[in-house]
Amino acid sequence: MVRFAVVGHRARTTGDFSLNDLPGGAGRMDVLCRCVNSAFFLSHDIRRDVECILVLLGEPDPPKTILFRGDELRYLSPDERSAASLIKKALNIPCGSEYRESTKGVYVRKGGLAELLGEHEFVQLDEGGADVRELEALPDAWLLSDHMDFTAEEAELAADLARISVGPRILHADHTITVVLNEIDRSEC
Amino acid sequence: MVRFAVVGHRARTTGDFSLNDLPGGAGRMDVLCRCVNSAFFLSHDIRRDVECILVLLGEPDPPKTILFRGDELRYLSPDERSAASLIKKALNIPCGSEYRESTKGVYVRKGGLAELLGEHEFVQLDEGGADVRELEALPDAWLLSDHMDFTAEEAELAADLARISVGPRILHADHTITVVLNEIDRSEC
Repeated sequence: MVRFAVVGHRARTTGDFSLNDLPGGAGRMDVLCRCVNSAFFLSHDIRRDVECILVLLGEPDPPKTILFRGDELRYLSPDERSAASLIKKALNIPCGSEYRESTKGVYVRKGGLAELLGEHEFVQLDEGGADVRELEALPDAWLLSDHMDFTAEEAELAADLARISVGPRILHADHTITVVLNEIDRSEC
Repeated sequence: MVRFAVVGHRARTTGDFSLNDLPGGAGRMDVLCRCVNSAFFLSHDIRRDVECILVLLGEPDPPKTILFRGDELRYLSPDERSAASLIKKALNIPCGSEYRESTKGVYVRKGGLAELLGEHEFVQLDEGGADVRELEALPDAWLLSDHMDFTAEEAELAADLARISVGPRILHADHTITVVLNEIDRSEC
């Protein structure tokens, strides 16, 4: 199982946002939706061995975590609105500190980065890190930020994580996921 | 200058589609919008040395070609609706066989793949092609299809193009562009 976790610093934490304004009112939810797309879609197929975890830190009820499981996922299309619609449904149900399923393969809970980092051995995608092509073995849990840098508090939580880079340019989170998966595909086939 | 051309087999050729239904009424315009995103966006920057060319073959007025020039582009945000809005504006102006600017850095003309293939020396992205990592020099014009295969007629037009693959799995067009650009970034830096 390969996991990608993306921190959405301003992503709305209730489902009362408009699908017509994902960058604005939903707090750059478009970034997270594209990460979901990159994590799962192959040509006419879904990556069943991937999980995509979104950490939502925007108003009014942060932190919340949404988990997409490729092996159970249904109803996801490649467009941003489709992922946003599943996120909206997840945010519309009450939840506590345990994951609760909102639609097939999508789960939501209260909690954020601190909880997540205790559950999997993440590496952090970082432009100053070691080149992913030079690694002896590819990690299976990857932490990314959205369009904003990690805060000082998040950086402290992640201080001990190994840093990995995907190349000489700084890419959007969803593009980074695509490049990592290409590397994993090449290592497996 | 690096060029990506993407054929949208069902993409609407007038601007009368809804931004709320890019996969449906607009003829999988969401695929083309994500290709525009992949072609241009870096973290807090735009790739000025890229052109993205969309060949639209859907009803009611095919073929049309829309050209996005990174060195002139304005008003483009990363979300699908933003690219779709610029495409809509391009399709809303009358055009002939010469490119006509619709918004800053975006051009539209009548014409399709046959015209385009005479203008640049394209290679075709194809899962059966040579591995992009094994090439001595990277091409600068890349032809892709949307979610559909090239038609027999298009395949004949493209019969002489070199075939390049980006890895062992068959990827969406926008993900393929991301992987190609990562390869180009690595070759340049």
